[in-house]
Amino acid sequence: MNPTAGMTLYTEFEDVAYSPYGVPFARGKENASSDNQFLLTRQQCKERGIDVHYDAKIRSIDVGSHTLTVQGEGVVRYDRLVIATGWEYADPDLDQGGLRGIFEVKDIRRTTEWDTYLDTVKEAVVVECGPITLEIVSALIQRGIKTTVLDPSSSQTPDAVDPDIMAPVRKAWEDAGVTMLCGQVTAFGGDGTLSHVETTSGSIPAQLAIIGTRKVSNNSLARAAGIELGRTGGIVIDSHMRTSARNVFAAGDCVEVQRGVSGIPSPGLSASHAYAQGKAAGLNAAGGNREYQPMYVPWATPTGDWIVGGVAFGETSATASGIKFVSGAAKGITRARYYPGVKPITVKLLADPVTHRLIGAQMVGGEGVKERADFLGVAIRAGVTIEDLATMENVYSPAIGALNEPINLAAQEVMKNF
Amino acid sequence: MNPTAGMTLYTEFEDVAYSPYGVPFARGKENASSDNQFLLTRQQCKERGIDVHYDAKIRSIDVGSHTLTVQGEGVVRYDRLVIATGWEYADPDLDQGGLRGIFEVKDIRRTTEWDTYLDTVKEAVVVECGPITLEIVSALIQRGIKTTVLDPSSSQTPDAVDPDIMAPVRKAWEDAGVTMLCGQVTAFGGDGTLSHVETTSGSIPAQLAIIGTRKVSNNSLARAAGIELGRTGGIVIDSHMRTSARNVFAAGDCVEVQRGVSGIPSPGLSASHAYAQGKAAGLNAAGGNREYQPMYVPWATPTGDWIVGGVAFGETSATASGIKFVSGAAKGITRARYYPGVKPITVKLLADPVTHRLIGAQMVGGEGVKERADFLGVAIRAGVTIEDLATMENVYSPAIGALNEPINLAAQEVMKNF
Repeated sequence: MNPTAGMTLYTEFEDVAYSPYGVPFARGKENASSDNQFLLTRQQCKERGIDVHYDAKIRSIDVGSHTLTVQGEGVVRYDRLVIATGWEYADPDLDQGGLRGIFEVKDIRRTTEWDTYLDTVKEAVVVECGPITLEIVSALIQRGIKTTVLDPSSSQTPDAVDPDIMAPVRKAWEDAGVTMLCGQVTAFGGDGTLSHVETTSGSIPAQLAIIGTRKVSNNSLARAAGIELGRTGGIVIDSHMRTSARNVFAAGDCVEVQRGVSGIPSPGLSASHAYAQGKAAGLNAAGGNREYQPMYVPWATPTGDWIVGGVAFGETSATASGIKFVSGAAKGITRARYYPGVKPITVKLLADPVTHRLIGAQMVGGEGVKERADFLGVAIRAGVTIEDLATMENVYSPAIGALNEPINLAAQEVMKNF
Repeated sequence: MNPTAGMTLYTEFEDVAYSPYGVPFARGKENASSDNQFLLTRQQCKERGIDVHYDAKIRSIDVGSHTLTVQGEGVVRYDRLVIATGWEYADPDLDQGGLRGIFEVKDIRRTTEWDTYLDTVKEAVVVECGPITLEIVSALIQRGIKTTVLDPSSSQTPDAVDPDIMAPVRKAWEDAGVTMLCGQVTAFGGDGTLSHVETTSGSIPAQLAIIGTRKVSNNSLARAAGIELGRTGGIVIDSHMRTSARNVFAAGDCVEVQRGVSGIPSPGLSASHAYAQGKAAGLNAAGGNREYQPMYVPWATPTGDWIVGGVAFGETSATASGIKFVSGAAKGITRARYYPGVKPITVKLLADPVTHRLIGAQMVGGEGVKERADFLGVAIRAGVTIEDLATMENVYSPAIGALNEPINLAAQEVMKNF
């Protein structure tokens, strides 16, 4: 956008531009090495003229004087600032007692150490059933580690997932020896290294505890600078990724964005839109004019042999937001029933009771969930109705698709419920 | 729709309700047996009260007196008639000289015999590069049979596929030892059994020849009955699957249907919409009122390690139909670039130069083609624009989806070409 503008990037970490979303898989050994998760090495950053300050700690932002205070560097002036401080796990408010064996899954370097530690572990506790839990539990199963998932809710399901969609995943976990426990951690025990986790449901032997709480905006710098935060704790931005402070933009997991369908502000906690926001914020900070639209958040995540996914609202989240809906679900298959590799897939669709427009979807299946989530995201934005989906055409080709597309079947179920 | 109505089904074959689209795969041994391709056995038909007349030959239809003449049964009266005579291979107009070893891929019984014959074959010629050729050639490769594809066009590509989309498939075929030859068969040679095929490009040793010509409407009964046929040879139907004759409906590969985007009548040669049409024709014949809408024909077919697919118009078919378009293509990937099982996928999108609405797509990739073809079919019908797709959200989850959705990348390419 502006090739002559200088750009400095500050990070508190030792690396930039890697894929943290691959970390849980590296730990399940599906992905042999973490090295290939890096998009840009330090050398490549330098070659592209990106001035990266690694291990840098920003102490404060002064939005009045357009300056940052950087530890060890002093006061630095900016013309435009983009805040991309990301997320952190919601604080479970527990004293970890300096024990070895308690981990968060976030920093690629730390999880590489963790990988080695995992080889010594026989039993693990995952503290809360957040989004990362879906991936981590299947990695632990694959490593042969006896796992307990401890969650305070009786549904033991991440907020974004409806319990019926979670059911086959829970069953697969239980079949693999995972214990689902309703309760909370009261203390971590051990001598130097974790040996057991005390909970409201009893003591659990464990050499490993993983903090799997929900993600929240890492907003401390912005808050201290007096930049407006929303109800969810995310930085408030406008359609051009501008914050309340002049010449300060923000993007990614630290912001709060407008949800499509409801217009309700929502935490921006997903790689999918962080990437699009980053591009919009960067372009606009450099003098461009890119609008970022309300989001529908197609998402999907594999967990063992299952993939769970969806877009916009599920029954749980629609109910919590006070959104009226009519829903319907269908069990389908991904290839002809006789073709090798055929997998089950359940699709649930939610529609507005008056306009019949699609307002959300939830899915669980063995393949093809990501593509359907993307599809339904575009469909919601385009105002597609359940009738449109109930009469949609679909490919039939035995090796790659079933006679009846599961989205089509689910739409027919919704029709019966209007 | 009408449970008290009697229903009689006449078929010239020995079976009903099987999946002919699985036949090419059975022949490549991906699918161990043909038995599981049957949806309904004779016994199951009987139990459901479906009166099937197997090996039945309809001699003629009299639309005036509402009667059929059935060989061996005489004259049969109908209140409503549904014609579903399907398709046949375009006649290559060649004398087969009664030689063993010349096959069409259509009837499941005949191809079961053919399966045994294949074990004796070292060399094969596929006569023309029609849609079935994509599947058959990879089956022959898998069986270790040296294969020559003979097609009169220099592109040696089915009409529905653009040459650039076909390119990786051709390369895979050539790498596997398949010869692509531009030419025509002049004669079949042999003594009782086929031993060679004479062509305009020389003589080719072959114990097997497969007729892979394009599919055409099997319209002879309808034609003889004076029922209106269209320019493509298909039976003309209205939006309720009614033919020009009173109380006579038609559905499936024998009809001509209105194409979305262009409104041009087009042969209805695809399982995907045959199924939807069958339901509409059946319901309406029984007194219902189901409308069948213009079609966009999402399609996809695997061929070896590749899947080729698309929806509505490609560059070749749009040009042939005189439809103005702007196109753009992008090469993407189906998972994170470091994740095991990641496959390439090329997506090409076509848009209307004035409205920027999507009017077609072509794809070739290793997975996820069917889901994207379905998606883009709904998107075309909903009037989605290239701008909508260029700003679409997508799932990013390393094991199942790449950071950049290939449809999104292709839309950005189209934007550059407006």
